[in-house]
Amino acid sequence: MPSPNLLECVPSPTDSPFIIEHIAEEFTSLCPKTGHPDFGTVTLRFQPRPAKAGGLCVELKSLKLYLQSFRTEGIFYEAVTNTIRDHLAAAMKPEWLLVKTDWKGRGGIRSIIRAEFGEVPASWRA
Amino acid sequence: MPSPNLLECVPSPTDSPFIIEHIAEEFTSLCPKTGHPDFGTVTLRFQPRPAKAGGLCVELKSLKLYLQSFRTEGIFYEAVTNTIRDHLAAAMKPEWLLVKTDWKGRGGIRSIIRAEFGEVPASWRA
Amino acid sequence: MPSPNLLECVPSPTDSPFIIEHIAEEFTSLCPKTGHPDFGTVTLRFQPRPAKAGGLCVELKSLKLYLQSFRTEGIFYEAVTNTIRDHLAAAMKPEWLLVKTDWKGRGGIRSIIRAEFGEVPASWRA
Amino acid sequence: MPSPNLLECVPSPTDSPFIIEHIAEEFTSLCPKTGHPDFGTVTLRFQPRPAKAGGLCVELKSLKLYLQSFRTEGIFYEAVTNTIRDHLAAAMKPEWLLVKTDWKGRGGIRSIIRAEFGEVPASWRA
Amino acid sequence: MPSPNLLECVPSPTDSPFIIEHIAEEFTSLCPKTGHPDFGTVTLRFQPRPAKAGGLCVELKSLKLYLQSFRTEGIFYEAVTNTIRDHLAAAMKPEWLLVKTDWKGRGGIRSIIRAEFGEVPASWRA
Amino acid sequence: MPSPNLLECVPSPTDSPFIIEHIAEEFTSLCPKTGHPDFGTVTLRFQPRPAKAGGLCVELKSLKLYLQSFRTEGIFYEAVTNTIRDHLAAAMKPEWLLVKTDWKGRGGIRSIIRAEFGEVPASWRA
Amino acid sequence: MPSPNLLECVPSPTDSPFIIEHIAEEFTSLCPKTGHPDFGTVTLRFQPRPAKAGGLCVELKSLKLYLQSFRTEGIFYEAVTNTIRDHLAAAMKPEWLLVKTDWKGRGGIRSIIRAEFGEVPASWRA
Amino acid sequence: MPSPNLLECVPSPTDSPFIIEHIAEEFTSLCPKTGHPDFGTVTLRFQPRPAKAGGLCVELKSLKLYLQSFRTEGIFYEAVTNTIRDHLAAAMKPEWLLVKTDWKGRGGIRSIIRAEFGEVPASWRA
Amino acid sequence: MPSPNLLECVPSPTDSPFIIEHIAEEFTSLCPKTGHPDFGTVTLRFQPRPAKAGGLCVELKSLKLYLQSFRTEGIFYEAVTNTIRDHLAAAMKPEWLLVKTDWKGRGGIRSIIRAEFGEVPASWRA
Amino acid sequence: MPSPNLLECVPSPTDSPFIIEHIAEEFTSLCPKTGHPDFGTVTLRFQPRPAKAGGLCVELKSLKLYLQSFRTEGIFYEAVTNTIRDHLAAAMKPEWLLVKTDWKGRGGIRSIIRAEFGEVPASWRA
Repeated sequence: MPSPNLLECVPSPTDSPFIIEHIAEEFTSLCPKTGHPDFGTVTLRFQPRPAKAGGLCVELKSLKLYLQSFRTEGIFYEAVTNTIRDHLAAAMKPEWLLVKTDWKGRGGIRSIIRAEFGEVPASWRA
Repeated sequence: MPSPNLLECVPSPTDSPFIIEHIAEEFTSLCPKTGHPDFGTVTLRFQPRPAKAGGLCVELKSLKLYLQSFRTEGIFYEAVTNTIRDHLAAAMKPEWLLVKTDWKGRGGIRSIIRAEFGEVPASWRA
Repeated sequence: MPSPNLLECVPSPTDSPFIIEHIAEEFTSLCPKTGHPDFGTVTLRFQPRPAKAGGLCVELKSLKLYLQSFRTEGIFYEAVTNTIRDHLAAAMKPEWLLVKTDWKGRGGIRSIIRAEFGEVPASWRA
Repeated sequence: MPSPNLLECVPSPTDSPFIIEHIAEEFTSLCPKTGHPDFGTVTLRFQPRPAKAGGLCVELKSLKLYLQSFRTEGIFYEAVTNTIRDHLAAAMKPEWLLVKTDWKGRGGIRSIIRAEFGEVPASWRA
Repeated sequence: MPSPNLLECVPSPTDSPFIIEHIAEEFTSLCPKTGHPDFGTVTLRFQPRPAKAGGLCVELKSLKLYLQSFRTEGIFYEAVTNTIRDHLAAAMKPEWLLVKTDWKGRGGIRSIIRAEFGEVPASWRA
Repeated sequence: MPSPNLLECVPSPTDSPFIIEHIAEEFTSLCPKTGHPDFGTVTLRFQPRPAKAGGLCVELKSLKLYLQSFRTEGIFYEAVTNTIRDHLAAAMKPEWLLVKTDWKGRGGIRSIIRAEFGEVPASWRA
Repeated sequence: MPSPNLLECVPSPTDSPFIIEHIAEEFTSLCPKTGHPDFGTVTLRFQPRPAKAGGLCVELKSLKLYLQSFRTEGIFYEAVTNTIRDHLAAAMKPEWLLVKTDWKGRGGIRSIIRAEFGEVPASWRA
Repeated sequence: MPSPNLLECVPSPTDSPFIIEHIAEEFTSLCPKTGHPDFGTVTLRFQPRPAKAGGLCVELKSLKLYLQSFRTEGIFYEAVTNTIRDHLAAAMKPEWLLVKTDWKGRGGIRSIIRAEFGEVPASWRA
Repeated sequence: MPSPNLLECVPSPTDSPFIIEHIAEEFTSLCPKTGHPDFGTVTLRFQPRPAKAGGLCVELKSLKLYLQSFRTEGIFYEAVTNTIRDHLAAAMKPEWLLVKTDWKGRGGIRSIIRAEFGEVPASWRA
Repeated sequence: MPSPNLLECVPSPTDSPFIIEHIAEEFTSLCPKTGHPDFGTVTLRFQPRPAKAGGLCVELKSLKLYLQSFRTEGIFYEAVTNTIRDHLAAAMKPEWLLVKTDWKGRGGIRSIIRAEFGEVPASWRA
């Protein structure tokens, strides 16, 4: 069952602002209505706080196990996206976090959901 | 016959702003002049109001049936786009809504129509 | 309703063997079980008989109207493919005919069906 | 011979701002120096004035015939682009119009020309 | 648990030889060593026996449920491929069957496995 | 007006068999029914006879002018293909010639026509 | 030898601001260290001054010959880019000019260099 | 140092002929002349002997470690390809084995090397 | 071992602001946890200071050797990115520097890391 | 000036048949009529004789210099192709050699020329 406890973090390696993006193309959960599997890609993009401010980055292996924990969950697209945003924001307290889920679709309609935490950094806007 | 009554909505799951995109690549309607079928892709992109403000999201199955209701309608590209915008804006009262239709074209000319409701959110501009 | 009577033919313009391919990317019919629309691409590839043997080629506008007649038909993928093969083989009596239908899919599975009439010409095998 | 008289317009269907794009991939004119044919893609993108302000949209069939009228014209890339901009701006008096021509090129150099009329709408900038 | 009992068949609609291909891009099973999920695409391609000989085609919905039954199985790539081949060959007794699995890979190596039943039809070789 | 007199040939430079392919992506002619322009790609592929047997290759500039001569012709797809095949076969008397025309299509159907002269060389089959 | 004297200009055809892009995909010069050839794509993008202000556009054939004059020059990537920018800025005195060179690379590293003259026009920023 | 001892095999799971392909896109070795790294993709494609004849398949993790052992080897493209073919043929004694290496290239030339062991199976030729 | 001493610089050739991008698609280092190799693409994008201010550009061959020095380093993605940023910033003291690393990924997750030095130039934002 | 003397060969490393392909995407020569540069890709594909029969492979650096020697040659497409075939066949005396040149084209027509020496090996046909 997805839980923030599955997420481990490591200290940010620098005080300089930088941006990390993880793209997990092998995500699957279950439709809570039909029980049929949903497949999608989950993208995380975040700027950790500076090292001196206790900045944290999610550790990759724990992220993999966390994302795998959705495999047996019946959960809607929107809830997947907001849940991951909330769990990661709580774990890392980042300057900025974007979670994007991109679903293969059902019945001829495919969906993309984006949820954010914090302010888009100026350097990303450029 | 396309009608806002076909659109069902579910409550937005969060107070945090987030953006939903639905892409329906199997849209077809009829040319009102010739009766020949038109084919295209319909993209919806919207930010619901916060949950606490009664924010709503269109339900996917009702959206599919709503889009299928154009199958026997004789209607121009521009009217398809503005009609979907008006019906969805009325049903969801979203912060922002973009409807884009992308048509396969006739006589060597293909067309893309975009209609909006509300203000583009700052996070999308980034 | 799909009928071979919708197909008009014109005489083959030459005694030399040649191969014609028509690709209709805007095909739609209805699922006979659910009534939901199916979308696909229909490809015809054929070698007409020589002009001196009364060879015939399907006329393009009649082909378009014939394919449009499936729009309101409830019919399975396999039946669409074999029906088009039978109707065109009856109308043109070609040396060779291949009908391929390539469907956008449902429930995460997409399908391709191929039906043939006559022998593949040696020149195509090369 | 290209003339604004070939362009017919229909009333804009709405007071809401929206954006129309027509992409004609089968454009050809003649090089005024060599007489050899030039091939390119012509893209129009415009926001009509609101319906209540007498907003107009170019009618698609007249646009096709207008673009075909360049087939026998000896005219440079830049002149094609500016001529289409001037004729369409005169016919539709739009809020904004962009004309882009994208040429297949000669002698290893291909060219893209963009001409505009009016102000880019805020929603497009997003 | 994957079982041939999950596969339902319908009679082949014709005596003419034809070829059916189903492509399931949302397949997942579990690595029997590590328990981590594997993701891949499963392609079936087969020629049913003629209708008059009792030819059968796998029914699409039962195929979907059959493929979903691997979701909780710990099973190697090669066994997935040979198992599907054996189950489908037993269920349909086709003239020809090819099962191809195409895996996203692990540790920088991705794999493709192909298993067959019966003889490749002459028309496919062309 | 298209005529074999527009085609100039140069002697084949070698006795060794070799294969030449010319791909003209900027071909246009007129529909004889509607007068509207057709656009397509013309591919020639041929093996000239050996130099010592008087082998000939079509000269590129004359080929360009020959293909441009179709610009004002009202002529069907099939006739374009067979005419080019006949004119080039008469001019070069090659061992083998394939003419393929690939048309952008009308009304949602695009077409590919192939006409040949002589036998496909063994080396091409490989 | 590359020289601004090779560049001929023609008057800008209009007072309206517009943007011209020329893309030369067949550029080659020599590495000044090793003498080995470098290959790349040169893109020019500029807004000429208005016609009434004596605006000028580089003539295409002279541009081709100018770019060919680098074929025997030993010159670094950065110098190619800045030289072309300087020569074209001197010849056309444009409102804005961007020169981008995109090199196929050596030793596993490929490079892109951008040099500008003047201010990016507001319409391009949109 | 690359050695056949690094390759572990598991028994083939079936008596039916089937074909396995492993594609390693992250291969690197060293140029024996310059010491600079080479990068490429290594593809293995093989048909194991039947299970009852003691057929063997290379185990994936040992294959990964075996391919990594080339990381510090100074070795030419051709030798990499033939060495892998020889080591795998000795370890698996397969019915058929194809080793293909596809290199990113140096100095504007990229290379592909193919080495085989045994006879191409009839089913692959189809 | 990666060291700023491996980086040689040459004077910037101009006082005009310009932007240089180097893309190294053949980068490899080692995972400090498992010792397994990581593969990725390293992109540098920078604006040197003006020549008159002592602006410097990294020399390409020294950059290649510098990047190769990571081949035997056990180092995390984030540290690779920040280390290259720090070393290049120290060596060139550029107006702006962006280092982006794009990794092939492990366990179904691929990563992109971006680190910057200085302010994004206005011309790049356009 | 292109000469077989520029081509150096190394002994084939094995008695087993194998196939080598070199793809040079940065080839340029001059049009003998106009003096303008031609650009193309040259592909060599060959099977050397067995090592014990004195089999030879062209050495890569000498191949690069040989291909560069065409940079100042005025020579037609067909002659480039047949010359390279003749020079390489004389230098390596391979079992099989294919030379393919793929030209960027002029005046809207691009060309591909293929010349061979010896028999296509059975394994390649598969």
